Amino acid sequence: MSESGKVTIAHGAGGKETWKIITELIVRRVPEQLRRTEGGIGIDKLDDGAVIRIDDKYIVVTIDSYTVKPLKFPGGNLGVLAASGTINDLLMMGAKPVAVEDAIIVEEGVSMELVSEIVNSFIEVLTDEGLAIIGGDFKVMPKGTLDIMVITSTGIGIAERPIVDTELRVGDSIVVTGPIAEHGATIIAAQLGMLDTVRGLSSDVKPLTKVMLPLLEKFGNYIHAARDPTRGGIASTLNEWASVIGKTIILKREEVPIRESVRSFLDMLGIDPLQVASEGIAVLGVDPEVTDELVKYLRSLGQVHARVIGKVVEPPSDVAKGKVLAETEVGGLVFVDTASVIVPRIC
Amino acid sequence: MSESGKVTIAHGAGGKETWKIITELIVRRVPEQLRRTEGGIGIDKLDDGAVIRIDDKYIVVTIDSYTVKPLKFPGGNLGVLAASGTINDLLMMGAKPVAVEDAIIVEEGVSMELVSEIVNSFIEVLTDEGLAIIGGDFKVMPKGTLDIMVITSTGIGIAERPIVDTELRVGDSIVVTGPIAEHGATIIAAQLGMLDTVRGLSSDVKPLTKVMLPLLEKFGNYIHAARDPTRGGIASTLNEWASVIGKTIILKREEVPIRESVRSFLDMLGIDPLQVASEGIAVLGVDPEVTDELVKYLRSLGQVHARVIGKVVEPPSDVAKGKVLAETEVGGLVFVDTASVIVPRIC
Repeated sequence: MSESGKVTIAHGAGGKETWKIITELIVRRVPEQLRRTEGGIGIDKLDDGAVIRIDDKYIVVTIDSYTVKPLKFPGGNLGVLAASGTINDLLMMGAKPVAVEDAIIVEEGVSMELVSEIVNSFIEVLTDEGLAIIGGDFKVMPKGTLDIMVITSTGIGIAERPIVDTELRVGDSIVVTGPIAEHGATIIAAQLGMLDTVRGLSSDVKPLTKVMLPLLEKFGNYIHAARDPTRGGIASTLNEWASVIGKTIILKREEVPIRESVRSFLDMLGIDPLQVASEGIAVLGVDPEVTDELVKYLRSLGQVHARVIGKVVEPPSDVAKGKVLAETEVGGLVFVDTASVIVPRIC
Repeated sequence: MSESGKVTIAHGAGGKETWKIITELIVRRVPEQLRRTEGGIGIDKLDDGAVIRIDDKYIVVTIDSYTVKPLKFPGGNLGVLAASGTINDLLMMGAKPVAVEDAIIVEEGVSMELVSEIVNSFIEVLTDEGLAIIGGDFKVMPKGTLDIMVITSTGIGIAERPIVDTELRVGDSIVVTGPIAEHGATIIAAQLGMLDTVRGLSSDVKPLTKVMLPLLEKFGNYIHAARDPTRGGIASTLNEWASVIGKTIILKREEVPIRESVRSFLDMLGIDPLQVASEGIAVLGVDPEVTDELVKYLRSLGQVHARVIGKVVEPPSDVAKGKVLAETEVGGLVFVDTASVIVPRIC
């Protein structure tokens, strides 16, 4: 990374550039022995959260800043997004969510009614799921120095066995719990002022507690990787996974569940749904031995669109190592790239 | 709090209004049983951090968003501020700092060199103190929607015996470890463009590890309250303390250590130094039995300006309950108010 350049939207979009800036700006500069606590999982894993080992307990800690424009959108608002995202990051690490601390920054002059509505949603989602809200910070930035509101949220959970995505291995099935790209498509439509003309779009933002906790209980040892495909969509998630383990992921494009409204809207814009954010689904890397049973169980939990969408294989060639390939209609394979869609303030 | 109003700078200034908005917007809306985890210390204490009890261990977790203008100032920069503030919040809870997660938001178009310098300082301060950096987030907001950069930082520490400020009691001495108001005075001068004309101002921003860890080791059981007086200065800290325990704190104004450069600059502006932020000192509530010994020990640790500046007493009258009173030169008492100085983006 050149230090002479300027920060671009791509650096924060959740794709290659984000990964690169985090690695070069932060990870490499932290002395090796301080990239994690003893026996824990740290920043070098670039996972959804970090793990601190305390005696025989695994404490999972996550952090994320949430900034979305517009603040309210079909299916949710910034508060629902921040609460759900925090809960889901903990679940993706295999943890039971326990508590949250939040740091809220608001622009001077914003209506208290709006702030109150967003904060209420944030609190409601968390407390409905039984999380404690144990601390926080509240700051105001002068008019013109912040666009409305940012919520940064730290989640704390406890895992019996943390899910570390580097455990993904050859043979594993890639399972998705529901239709993709719904959050991102909705925000893009809102930002383009197209919500009135395009019907049927609504964000999927929600906590996955009622899906993931039973799943972890029943299949915990067989789930090798788990991620909520937010910024950058499942293309980013799968490329990161393939890259960290140095294998290839073969994606069956036609198996990826997408609602028709989302597909046709993104088609119209020429955007690949694989690169668009979800906020209410999980992508899992599952031991092939239990895959069918696990998908069946997901459907019994109400995730009726749950499906196997790919598998991890030995790289068929050198250039395919660490990459994601999709099967084409005529039987060939093409690379699936990480986010080229640069939509700011999506989550 | 009226929901019909607008958010003002005062809501984020660390004084009465901040306390009020946090209480009314967040604390009261969280169901009582979810304001802390079982056996822990939570949001209702409004302390520097929260405590989660895990078996016989106390895990302390803090969160704060740091936004300062200018990003670089005499004595430090945003990175030094965020790292020091996080470490100090953990120390003030009686914890040994262990790890940090950070969420960085940068405005599109900012020079990579500047971001790199700030992040480097952040990492250096933390790793010099032995903290692990275990996770993070990096987001970019479009040009014009964020003024340069915000760092939100979550600190994780372990306490043998957490310091909960509500343990402050009648008879306790109020001790300050060093001269006050140095950070705030420096930032105010910078914001007013007066750094060239006013000499000798420099922020005191630094981690207090080398002071607080030995102090906790030697006097842990005798320190009933501890706080780094940042936003709102020691006036806010002491008023919050007096208020939560329903007692009165008598302040000996002339004993409060202030460097001449800071005093004369703030005098010129008519600002009370008691209301101005520090970033490298602690205010302690100390058992009177050990006060002299503790102050001597602080001085032996290099804190040569450490001094007793007040004490906790039974309220001399109903109106003095939960308030801070200062002795005047003629022997009377006056109220010490919380921050009326509304300086945004100071820490």
